[in-house]
Amino acid sequence: MEYYVGIDLGGTNIKAGVVTDTGEMINKKSIKTNAERPMEAIINDMGTLAKSVIEDAKLNLKDIKAIGIGSPGTPDNKEGILVYSNNLPFNMAPMRKLIREVVDLPVYIDNDANCAGMAEAVAGAAKGVKNSVTITLGTGIGAGVIVNGRIYSGFNQAGSEFGHTVLVSGGEPCSCGRKGCFEKYGSATALGRLTKEAADKNPDSKLNDVIKSEGKINAKIAFKAMRMGDEVAKEVVETYTDYLADGLANVINAFMPEVLVIGGGVCNEGDPLLIPLQEKTMSRPYFGPGVKKTVIKLAEMGNDAGIVGAAMMGKSCYDDGIQG
Amino acid sequence: MEYYVGIDLGGTNIKAGVVTDTGEMINKKSIKTNAERPMEAIINDMGTLAKSVIEDAKLNLKDIKAIGIGSPGTPDNKEGILVYSNNLPFNMAPMRKLIREVVDLPVYIDNDANCAGMAEAVAGAAKGVKNSVTITLGTGIGAGVIVNGRIYSGFNQAGSEFGHTVLVSGGEPCSCGRKGCFEKYGSATALGRLTKEAADKNPDSKLNDVIKSEGKINAKIAFKAMRMGDEVAKEVVETYTDYLADGLANVINAFMPEVLVIGGGVCNEGDPLLIPLQEKTMSRPYFGPGVKKTVIKLAEMGNDAGIVGAAMMGKSCYDDGIQG
Repeated sequence: MEYYVGIDLGGTNIKAGVVTDTGEMINKKSIKTNAERPMEAIINDMGTLAKSVIEDAKLNLKDIKAIGIGSPGTPDNKEGILVYSNNLPFNMAPMRKLIREVVDLPVYIDNDANCAGMAEAVAGAAKGVKNSVTITLGTGIGAGVIVNGRIYSGFNQAGSEFGHTVLVSGGEPCSCGRKGCFEKYGSATALGRLTKEAADKNPDSKLNDVIKSEGKINAKIAFKAMRMGDEVAKEVVETYTDYLADGLANVINAFMPEVLVIGGGVCNEGDPLLIPLQEKTMSRPYFGPGVKKTVIKLAEMGNDAGIVGAAMMGKSCYDDGIQG
Repeated sequence: MEYYVGIDLGGTNIKAGVVTDTGEMINKKSIKTNAERPMEAIINDMGTLAKSVIEDAKLNLKDIKAIGIGSPGTPDNKEGILVYSNNLPFNMAPMRKLIREVVDLPVYIDNDANCAGMAEAVAGAAKGVKNSVTITLGTGIGAGVIVNGRIYSGFNQAGSEFGHTVLVSGGEPCSCGRKGCFEKYGSATALGRLTKEAADKNPDSKLNDVIKSEGKINAKIAFKAMRMGDEVAKEVVETYTDYLADGLANVINAFMPEVLVIGGGVCNEGDPLLIPLQEKTMSRPYFGPGVKKTVIKLAEMGNDAGIVGAAMMGKSCYDDGIQG
């Protein structure tokens, strides 16, 4: 059996685990990132955590083929550095070099959303499929594109940023500097904003009652009020799924994945979200008669996507003979 | 020397030529498509034309490795058929089989916009670059995506349809059934529409004089009136380049090509179009500090893109050992 280590670097936690070559996770561990520290200290902890999960699995370094790291931001896997990250104090961070000082194994780096896509492609909803895209609806919108079983993110590893493609020209200002980006209309955050706007316009709606009882705006409120029969909430969900379907149809027209995987907490709403979303999305792309259609599926890897995806990204680089 | 035949199938003309393995065109010939005929007759003519350019080049069948066909619509290169085309009477057209009855060589089929991208990647503006996207601004917007030197168009060969990604949610109705597609705002046709709208609103503008003198709306009028100092025309060009830049920035954020090639008649306007377009486009994508940037270039292959691209697509399939 071949083993790999996956490290999932986040703003709050660093998670790591040993993963088999078929994407099965053997064990996992988590520590706090403490992101205010210098990057060298954080990277050192990542290496130590990797060492620790290898020991916990009763394995030796020689049993492990490679370490894969999934990180926010833009990596340079050739040079083994994290070029830049919005959320972490990493700037031209020499991850490969510093990790290898702690655990001397080939080290590969990719973006966390890309790794999530890899996890679904190897062991999740897009298992057995060569071309897939995984879209994660959260604070923003993440995307992981798999082409011929490999992560595709452009010549500079900064692509597949579907969250930052404009859907509503001149619309809501986005953190990236553009106006009307998909993530301002299709993310969980966007659903919260649409909920608040509708509640403000309709002070007597049940939507307002639910907001008051919850104490704050979140992505669940519109669905909850809709289940209570509130027409205003129904309208909010309708508007949200319309935008979301438009953005997903754009992804399909651009990449034509065999399977489009959707993940993120919003998906826990189940059928009231998914059935209309699937219908709306599939009616929009430009399939001609007789042309095979993309299938939309829910993400299956859950919280393990980060570790498994990072490990399997590492495997794909190792298999391709990339210098780690 | 290795040779390939490229066939460029269009609604008006069928063009074919012999091309070397480095993308140099040896000769070419053109005949009328007469698209109202049964598809069998058209495909037979394509085969005969291929045979004829081989003979004209004083070559034998054994000197030619493969025939590549660039066609409008969605092909199935595995089965050797054209599944469907909007503009031609082709429906599950068995191109490979029928062409091979006339010229018995491996036959490969791909979309014409994808072949144009291949031509630029092998011998044009993106020569020597592994990942590029070629966008052609015409009646609509065509796109050809090259990933690792190969055409990428998804699992069903129907992808890279950037012309049909929504840019203005709820905007202009598109032939594909969606509203607000990029090609309704960024194509040459769209520039004509913006020109007409502005002229109707400003009956005393020079823009109206130019339209009258030209006798009809086209994509050159706004630029012509702008060169005459007309403020209304300047505004039209400003609006058009804004939309175009937004769409091109979407392509960059999604695919992050090393080179983004722009082609089509509108590009003949030169610097008054290109300088603001380049500035606007490059200010929008989500490059972090230190991240390498896409370069925008003008298409170089002109009218030969179809033949050369089809031939080089054929070469790439032949090199990959695909059954032709």
